[in-house]
Amino acid sequence: MIEKKKEQVMLEKIIAYIEKYSLIERGDGIVVGVSGGADSVCLLLILVELRKRFLLDLVVVHVHHGIRGKEADEDEEFVRNLASQLEIPFVVERRDVPAFARECGLSEEEAGRAVRYEIFEQVRKCYGFTKVAVAHNKNDCAETVLFHLFRGSGLTGISGISASREKVIRPLLCCSRDEIERFLAERGQLFRTDRTNFLEEYSRNKIRLRVLPYVAKEINDRAVEHIVGTAGMVSEAQEFIEKNVQIMYDKVVSMRNGIYFINADEFRAVDRIIQRGILYQVIVRLAKGKKDIEQKHVELVMELMNRSVGKEVMLPYDIVAVRSYDGIQVCKRECLVRSKQKKKWEFVEVKPGNTYLLEEIGYQISLELVKNEQGAMQIPKNDCTKWFDYDRINNVILVRSRQSGDYLEINDKRGRKKLKDYFIDKKIPRDVRDEIPLLTDGNHVMWIFGDRISERYKVSEMTKNILMVNIMEVKKNGR
Amino acid sequence: MIEKKKEQVMLEKIIAYIEKYSLIERGDGIVVGVSGGADSVCLLLILVELRKRFLLDLVVVHVHHGIRGKEADEDEEFVRNLASQLEIPFVVERRDVPAFARECGLSEEEAGRAVRYEIFEQVRKCYGFTKVAVAHNKNDCAETVLFHLFRGSGLTGISGISASREKVIRPLLCCSRDEIERFLAERGQLFRTDRTNFLEEYSRNKIRLRVLPYVAKEINDRAVEHIVGTAGMVSEAQEFIEKNVQIMYDKVVSMRNGIYFINADEFRAVDRIIQRGILYQVIVRLAKGKKDIEQKHVELVMELMNRSVGKEVMLPYDIVAVRSYDGIQVCKRECLVRSKQKKKWEFVEVKPGNTYLLEEIGYQISLELVKNEQGAMQIPKNDCTKWFDYDRINNVILVRSRQSGDYLEINDKRGRKKLKDYFIDKKIPRDVRDEIPLLTDGNHVMWIFGDRISERYKVSEMTKNILMVNIMEVKKNGR
Repeated sequence: MIEKKKEQVMLEKIIAYIEKYSLIERGDGIVVGVSGGADSVCLLLILVELRKRFLLDLVVVHVHHGIRGKEADEDEEFVRNLASQLEIPFVVERRDVPAFARECGLSEEEAGRAVRYEIFEQVRKCYGFTKVAVAHNKNDCAETVLFHLFRGSGLTGISGISASREKVIRPLLCCSRDEIERFLAERGQLFRTDRTNFLEEYSRNKIRLRVLPYVAKEINDRAVEHIVGTAGMVSEAQEFIEKNVQIMYDKVVSMRNGIYFINADEFRAVDRIIQRGILYQVIVRLAKGKKDIEQKHVELVMELMNRSVGKEVMLPYDIVAVRSYDGIQVCKRECLVRSKQKKKWEFVEVKPGNTYLLEEIGYQISLELVKNEQGAMQIPKNDCTKWFDYDRINNVILVRSRQSGDYLEINDKRGRKKLKDYFIDKKIPRDVRDEIPLLTDGNHVMWIFGDRISERYKVSEMTKNILMVNIMEVKKNGR
Repeated sequence: MIEKKKEQVMLEKIIAYIEKYSLIERGDGIVVGVSGGADSVCLLLILVELRKRFLLDLVVVHVHHGIRGKEADEDEEFVRNLASQLEIPFVVERRDVPAFARECGLSEEEAGRAVRYEIFEQVRKCYGFTKVAVAHNKNDCAETVLFHLFRGSGLTGISGISASREKVIRPLLCCSRDEIERFLAERGQLFRTDRTNFLEEYSRNKIRLRVLPYVAKEINDRAVEHIVGTAGMVSEAQEFIEKNVQIMYDKVVSMRNGIYFINADEFRAVDRIIQRGILYQVIVRLAKGKKDIEQKHVELVMELMNRSVGKEVMLPYDIVAVRSYDGIQVCKRECLVRSKQKKKWEFVEVKPGNTYLLEEIGYQISLELVKNEQGAMQIPKNDCTKWFDYDRINNVILVRSRQSGDYLEINDKRGRKKLKDYFIDKKIPRDVRDEIPLLTDGNHVMWIFGDRISERYKVSEMTKNILMVNIMEVKKNGR
């Protein structure tokens, strides 16, 4: 009876955890990843217990890594038999993980993980299921935290393992390895032991086999619990900071032609930790991923803010950050070269009924004149096509870069705004202002490409003739 | 020559660190705590090097702990001689740390630390100096992080040691223990070794002697560096969160008569991590300190938010949190008892020229009538004394609790606001609204005690007679 009760306590703890993080809903179909080890066998038994309560559909998936020969075959056989006893469909997938690891330049450990999650997801889709359950426990979480703490991977690294991520759920994350093994012992349930877990050549194994047992015995017997608790707080802190970074990002950063511009004034107004988060985002966007992007790269750009105009730092993936007059520009080196070669280009006159290829500025422009037939046409809402009231145009139409005296109307009260002030308000960095093509009627800017048109030319019910202008980006000439 | 260069590198690193965190300014007077161990001897030599650069005044302070008999005497002698060689004033203070530890219920380690900082501060004041320098290094920081991580002391615990705190500065925090010992070896400078640092009975020593060396050797040789780096990020994250907690605190929490009220709607609108910070603040304010206040107490109150009205949880120091209709009340148990006993009390008529002791509501009130002599008097700006335009009062003046139909004027446009709506806007919890004493003229509320007066009665240039009313809190009758 006492045995029964302990098992019940663990089950209730897991149910509470599932509910706290909404891991499972009634009617879920769950792919259960089962290696045959204690954790995943326990996970399977628990989900079988919960089957009725949550009306679950289950399928067991076992991945054969093509490592550890006969032992691995025996693992497969063990899981197949267990699934059959429990009357749950069984899927096995074989992969040559060592070969995959070599191909991708990953460790076998990393490659195995990538392969497993990929297979689980394939089976999930194939069965039309909703979730993938994996068997991480508290000890795994504590090990991960220490592993990252010792290797230096910042806040994200020490925020532990999360209860769920996309379709993947981890219902055993509230249990310790001891609890899991006691549960299996009480049930008399056998499990397989992966000998590689005991090889001390892996850092993770060293933490599991040496560091944590020593700490639990000699320093604090609830160390795992405490590490997991602190990781949870770090995770929440991290989420909060991330949210604030997203909020501030748009205020601080603007992007044009592949060049990210960080406005110095706006940047200084935010907290340092948010500054770092914003710079990290910019670099990651340019690098198209987090790989190889480290805190030290962020620091380099941070320091650049206090240096003089023209100073630059090199980052991975040929990314370069340059201190400009009013902030920092970050881009791929090729973009920088292009922008350094820029010069003021000549104007081009454009007329309705024609298409012009303006290679120098990288645009093709077409102009067409049509009668305004009430309600027959919808003004398109996109950045490439704009309509203008043709009869309000007083001069020849030019495509050109800015000139002094340029202005536009930005509200229907006919108030003029200097183009220069408009650029300043929009935080367009000085260096790129000359590069922005304009459609103009004398000094009146009809359209700032990629931005707004002047209110003056907006099509209304009174408009008789509509000038439809379409632009298309093309490869720049010789750049 | 190579020796000389390494030493120079370390010195430059320390100078950069001092400048980054503004640890030292020109002309500082610095108390240097020197135990005689490698770290503090190095600190002293470094500060001597920097003496000219920063125009420093130095004094060496050694604390004799009354532990370790002869060895401790030799330590004292060693530091005295070193100070004399360097021609720096030397102060020694003896304390019976074991006795102090027993008295305060602290470990000898904790007691020693408290005693040292106290003595350093005393000497600082006595010399009229500006700073106290202590010799923590990177390893100390990493050890502290692991110590707290294993014991579970949340984000603050793993944010490491800070470069400065009030008057205390830590210029060696950018150096590792190895660097420090190499520096001394190159100089041929001797130092004392505290044998208790090698006793494995202390958790900290276990981390220093066992855990970190194992990790550096087997997992990552720059582990100390990485732990310190991550701690710095946690510290910044913690600061950012703390700042946001302070910003939200006043929106979410109001306090009246020793009862903190947490408004449920406002509370739900903030992030969980900020919610926790706010609750922690409330509990710490009531507990008058952080001692014994743990994350689990915060969790108890968090959970209370989802429970039904009337549920309560007990916290340390006789603090109790109760779920009320519109939020949570947190207070000392005695306040709760008092507030449960409350009943609507009778009105009292008050007249100018008199003082009334209203024991039932815990106030003494005095009223005085004076002529308004232009410019002769300044309207006092405090919560205890208010002035009213006497000639605008139409009825007898009562002190009473609220009644239906009560209103006040909250702007000079003579718009009336229902008292009920005013209370709702100010987020005064329902339960306490009946308890707030009002000074009234019919249904017109002249003054909400502890809050505002009605615009209607404000003294202006036109006022002929001023009613000056003063209230003073007194002990409540029989409560």
